[in-house]
Amino acid sequence: MRWIKLTVAYDGTAYCGWQYQPACPSVQGAVEDALGRITGEPIRTIASGRTDAGVHALGQVVSFSTGSRLSAEVFQRALNAELPHDVAVVAAEEAPAGFHATHDARRKRYRYVIHDGPVRDVFRVRYAWHVYQRLDAERMDRAAKTLVGTHDFRSFETSGSPRANTVRTLFEIEVRRGRGGEGDLVVTEIEADGFLYNMARAIVGTLVEVGRGARPEPWVAGVLAANERSAAGPTAPPQGLFLVKVEY
Amino acid sequence: MRWIKLTVAYDGTAYCGWQYQPACPSVQGAVEDALGRITGEPIRTIASGRTDAGVHALGQVVSFSTGSRLSAEVFQRALNAELPHDVAVVAAEEAPAGFHATHDARRKRYRYVIHDGPVRDVFRVRYAWHVYQRLDAERMDRAAKTLVGTHDFRSFETSGSPRANTVRTLFEIEVRRGRGGEGDLVVTEIEADGFLYNMARAIVGTLVEVGRGARPEPWVAGVLAANERSAAGPTAPPQGLFLVKVEY
Repeated sequence: MRWIKLTVAYDGTAYCGWQYQPACPSVQGAVEDALGRITGEPIRTIASGRTDAGVHALGQVVSFSTGSRLSAEVFQRALNAELPHDVAVVAAEEAPAGFHATHDARRKRYRYVIHDGPVRDVFRVRYAWHVYQRLDAERMDRAAKTLVGTHDFRSFETSGSPRANTVRTLFEIEVRRGRGGEGDLVVTEIEADGFLYNMARAIVGTLVEVGRGARPEPWVAGVLAANERSAAGPTAPPQGLFLVKVEY
Repeated sequence: MRWIKLTVAYDGTAYCGWQYQPACPSVQGAVEDALGRITGEPIRTIASGRTDAGVHALGQVVSFSTGSRLSAEVFQRALNAELPHDVAVVAAEEAPAGFHATHDARRKRYRYVIHDGPVRDVFRVRYAWHVYQRLDAERMDRAAKTLVGTHDFRSFETSGSPRANTVRTLFEIEVRRGRGGEGDLVVTEIEADGFLYNMARAIVGTLVEVGRGARPEPWVAGVLAANERSAAGPTAPPQGLFLVKVEY
């Protein structure tokens, strides 16, 4: 057996998310169908983590093992020919025996895009959260910085899906307004050793409360310290979220 | 009666084009349905021109007359609340009595986006033509410049829809490669006093032949001089085309 590591980009709009679900199109299902047609084997893939319905990926990492002798490069080309147009393999390589995209992940980076222009941008409705009120990105950035470090992030975990361990290390978070033609965008980048369920979206929803002036900056540190989900702001909608990259 | 001028943006992916068609969703139908719900009147709109299925607009201009007393600003807000998410009114204003978006148009500007990266970009498949071969944008630009001026453009008109007069004035054309994160994009901007059917897409399809080295630069001037469609390159697909603005 060989292990292959794929880096996969997808527009999540048309999917129920990464994970296979019966009666609902998933990105995993699309990738596994394509692998099955290419290899003739029933192949089960493993991703760095699930992404929810409507969430996008620039660099989701997917691993699988196969008896096929096709080179990684040929896998990439054959997959791109077989996959639907909203899914693409941007890189493929041989991985060490036993490589596991979920368990071996060390750091993940997410991006969240908010559009706060007065009129919705028809070319961004699938790829950004449209907030009608102008946001103060600098305030959001200062408040966000209080989340950096190793903390119990359970305040930012959607209830109903508790993890045994809710401590994560947030390495970096930055909120900045776009420049030039992107002056109506507020982009948040978050990098951590792992994310609880809906954590990135709950953090962004909380920062928006500060950005629109509904809450003071120090409130965010208080939400973190409260250790309960009801303390935080609403969960930002899925279409603004992008899984940017995963490090191993 | 009053005349209102709307500037409308749309993602054309889901539509058969601007013009109303039975049994096929059109942008015109969406706008007229919304206007009907807002005013209670059956309103017929006029656009600067048709756009084809899959073609987008940043600034299509649409005019209509109405007995309603709603201000242009209220029309804009009410329309944006009623319209589907892939259509938006970006500006609305009172127009002089008798204003006609088709007949009064003086200049139109189109943009055509090509993606020539090695792997398809899932976030651009709806908004660009993916050409697998790397293009020489500078060669395309030099060849394009031979089209500037007042000429008979019938070589770039799709047959089956002849106009009585095929002479148009092309004020400006520029082909340039994107910078920074857009280095895999080749963008063509064309401004003219009017466009024949499929003219912008036929010009781009012709320039791509030069950009990929299949034809020499002077071939484009020869295509123009030939005065027949068969001389030109293929018609570029619709999803890369954007109606940028219309001047009156």
